[in-house]
Amino acid sequence: MSHYEKAGVSIDAGQQAVELMKDAVKRTHNANVLAGLGAFGGMFELTNLPENPTLVASTDGVGTKVKIAAKLGNYAGIGHDIVNHCVNDILCAGSGVRPLFFLDYVASSKLEPTLVATLVTGMSEACEKLNCAVLGGETAEMPGVYQQDEFDVVGTIVALMDKTKVYPKASLKAGDALIALPSVSPHTNGYSLIRSIFSEDEYSQAFEGIPHLGDALLAPHRCYLKELNILEDAKVDIQGIAHITGGGLVENLPRILPEGHSFSFDRSHWTCPPLFKLMQEKGEVPEIEMFRVF
Amino acid sequence: MSHYEKAGVSIDAGQQAVELMKDAVKRTHNANVLAGLGAFGGMFELTNLPENPTLVASTDGVGTKVKIAAKLGNYAGIGHDIVNHCVNDILCAGSGVRPLFFLDYVASSKLEPTLVATLVTGMSEACEKLNCAVLGGETAEMPGVYQQDEFDVVGTIVALMDKTKVYPKASLKAGDALIALPSVSPHTNGYSLIRSIFSEDEYSQAFEGIPHLGDALLAPHRCYLKELNILEDAKVDIQGIAHITGGGLVENLPRILPEGHSFSFDRSHWTCPPLFKLMQEKGEVPEIEMFRVF
Repeated sequence: MSHYEKAGVSIDAGQQAVELMKDAVKRTHNANVLAGLGAFGGMFELTNLPENPTLVASTDGVGTKVKIAAKLGNYAGIGHDIVNHCVNDILCAGSGVRPLFFLDYVASSKLEPTLVATLVTGMSEACEKLNCAVLGGETAEMPGVYQQDEFDVVGTIVALMDKTKVYPKASLKAGDALIALPSVSPHTNGYSLIRSIFSEDEYSQAFEGIPHLGDALLAPHRCYLKELNILEDAKVDIQGIAHITGGGLVENLPRILPEGHSFSFDRSHWTCPPLFKLMQEKGEVPEIEMFRVF
Repeated sequence: MSHYEKAGVSIDAGQQAVELMKDAVKRTHNANVLAGLGAFGGMFELTNLPENPTLVASTDGVGTKVKIAAKLGNYAGIGHDIVNHCVNDILCAGSGVRPLFFLDYVASSKLEPTLVATLVTGMSEACEKLNCAVLGGETAEMPGVYQQDEFDVVGTIVALMDKTKVYPKASLKAGDALIALPSVSPHTNGYSLIRSIFSEDEYSQAFEGIPHLGDALLAPHRCYLKELNILEDAKVDIQGIAHITGGGLVENLPRILPEGHSFSFDRSHWTCPPLFKLMQEKGEVPEIEMFRVF
């Protein structure tokens, strides 16, 4: 007799996860949310529409950073990672982008209700800061697809903007200044390379300028919205924004440049953070590869 | 020296996948799509807004059906599966739901450009039928997270509706008729149980009423939009819709019923399709479990 639980999928575990996370999710629900958890589809009423209302959407994952989180049993930051990664992507779309809602997908070989709840609670905390609703999500048990104790996290964000305020602006031109905002960690990129540089035993060790390698590697992807608001308040006329994710500086900056244009920067203008210095030296990673991956 | 490719992630393979799929994706792009592939976020202009404009969104995966597809090297239907699963979910939200756009996520231990392109082409074909744009997506290589040759597929759909046309209607009442629309396969649910019933060798075999088990198991999740339109054209006053996915009839039908109401059906009104009959008998699955899983 083959009950579903014996085949490796527990429907009750899914329900238990929903119970554990629902309060955090509900805190993100503003008056625009008409239906959320439990509905077949989340419903979000559109109000205060801008002129030329246009939706901006992005789907992403956090890559193999999840493996380090799984190894250290430290999942608290991963929810922030996925939300902030998605938000930063859509901030590149134009000025005045307003995040509306976020949907998540969490899958693993075995559904651990507390893991799922920790992840979704982190997402909810990150969303709450942005007045962005966690509108729906899916948890999936995939025995035989995921390796034991491993999981993946996927997020989708939908935001609203005015289509005439799109980045990069047509006025972006040669001679414009490039402003770099520092990350707090490798964020969510390059973790397969990182894991080939360090042994798992080293995650709990200290290195020069790094009290705990694992904590440094798991520092959540930051959201750049606050800095953008400061620049806008200071009347900086932003021409375009590039989110430096997979492909690094080498591939992401050209995405916003007009044809025939390139960018240059002076490496002496910034100090390489200890973690990146350590990775480059210990992994003997060529500088161009550092720029391409991180 | 640890280049990224040696660490198990090929950035070039990602670019190659984009090349292979971009024509199919572009065919889904109507005049509302302002930015798609290559942009940090997909942009979709909102036009012909209904009264009380409200977005409906859903994220889902196709479960371990991907394992059978991977085993048989037959991925063509999986793209249709994920789109149609998502669409059916949001059709439950109300009448006149209009799909706007879809985003996808494909991850595996190793990124095979042709696999990704086949999946996304399938998604694009399913979306094209619905005038729904494939607005963006992400492919991720996750060595060490996914088992070898395994992959996962996640989709998110966003649609537009009038919030006053929501299902279930307040007029849903005791005595209303239940109309069941047949599926063409287990769609995207119960595949872990299915895989525990059949050996991999049996996928290529014939059974009573089933010329090829693998083909029967991989028949793509159908989209019920056409049937709904027929019912609406025939002036059937639909009170609510339940998409029978994970949790089966037992858990999904009550989701649309008012408190204190239940449903009943007469098993003699339908014939059990050969595939479901075979699964129940061969797997010795109790009838209540069949109703809960499928």
